[in-house]
Amino acid sequence: MARRTDTRERVVRSAARLFHAQGYHATGLNQVLAEGGAPKGSLYFHFPGGKEQLAAEAVALAGAELCAELRAVLAATPDPAEALDQVLRLLGERLVASDFTCGCPISGVALDASAESEPIRAACVEVYDSWQRVVADHLDRTDADDLAVVVLAAVEGAVLLARTRRDLAPLHAVGARLGLLLGRNAR
Amino acid sequence: MARRTDTRERVVRSAARLFHAQGYHATGLNQVLAEGGAPKGSLYFHFPGGKEQLAAEAVALAGAELCAELRAVLAATPDPAEALDQVLRLLGERLVASDFTCGCPISGVALDASAESEPIRAACVEVYDSWQRVVADHLDRTDADDLAVVVLAAVEGAVLLARTRRDLAPLHAVGARLGLLLGRNAR
Repeated sequence: MARRTDTRERVVRSAARLFHAQGYHATGLNQVLAEGGAPKGSLYFHFPGGKEQLAAEAVALAGAELCAELRAVLAATPDPAEALDQVLRLLGERLVASDFTCGCPISGVALDASAESEPIRAACVEVYDSWQRVVADHLDRTDADDLAVVVLAAVEGAVLLARTRRDLAPLHAVGARLGLLLGRNAR
Repeated sequence: MARRTDTRERVVRSAARLFHAQGYHATGLNQVLAEGGAPKGSLYFHFPGGKEQLAAEAVALAGAELCAELRAVLAATPDPAEALDQVLRLLGERLVASDFTCGCPISGVALDASAESEPIRAACVEVYDSWQRVVADHLDRTDADDLAVVVLAAVEGAVLLARTRRDLAPLHAVGARLGLLLGRNAR
């Protein structure tokens, strides 16, 4: 029994990694199963909804992991502008360490598959909502929800630009400017 | 002679449309040729660099078209915060009219293919740079470049969120908050 759960989780984890690195359509199911150490042909045993179900679960897993990291960074950094800098530093380190392949773990799948698959789109929405909620809770002000969506959008866009340009400058610019909106004095 | 040029342009245009709607990997070359009215098997005659060259040209075409629209909107709207609102309105109308499938015309390809193809990545970088330059020229202040990358990032991220959520709220939030950074008084 434990073995079945382990296999299932390994497959979701390898799917998350491959969808992130290669995109949804470019990733073949045999590659996911092979990297997850699952027998060829076992996909529908573990995931009756096929590739779509696998992608939705992979998005949820990758989103939850980053959400936990985000929560930890924010809990350790009460000042909102400082917390934003810390999050951007984390994301920048990850980009550099992966030679600019690892950006947002879900936006590739969101763009690639959410127009054609409602379960995948719903999984992406849930992840974006969870990240936004963590930011909003940390801001603790009456306009927190509205401001959190702007922070999320700017960070997502900055990661996209930084990944494509192979340059962290967009992350630094967003940190400096959004810091002003979050209450840091001009510097 | 004219006919060869027409076919080539039609193929690039259909590639731009299909890569945008379906992503780079999910789009087959036969579909691109069929929609462009080009004979099956004629891809390498028009594009010796194959799918990669086609994608780079499609990104450049889609980027140049949006750049021209952007330039026209900004030229007609001197106030930076108002100009941002106009651009966001244009992008929002396009999202709604396409049932939330048409977001940024190049970010899908940028995420899907720029890690594996240097020509496609270079084409995406050139487009992002061109949009950023148009915004920076319009801002006309000493920190214009730095501010323009933040505006570009926030708009890209907001379009990604709005497309995935099927909801224009992220565009409105970015318009209101970035308007403050662009000099509009709090409202």
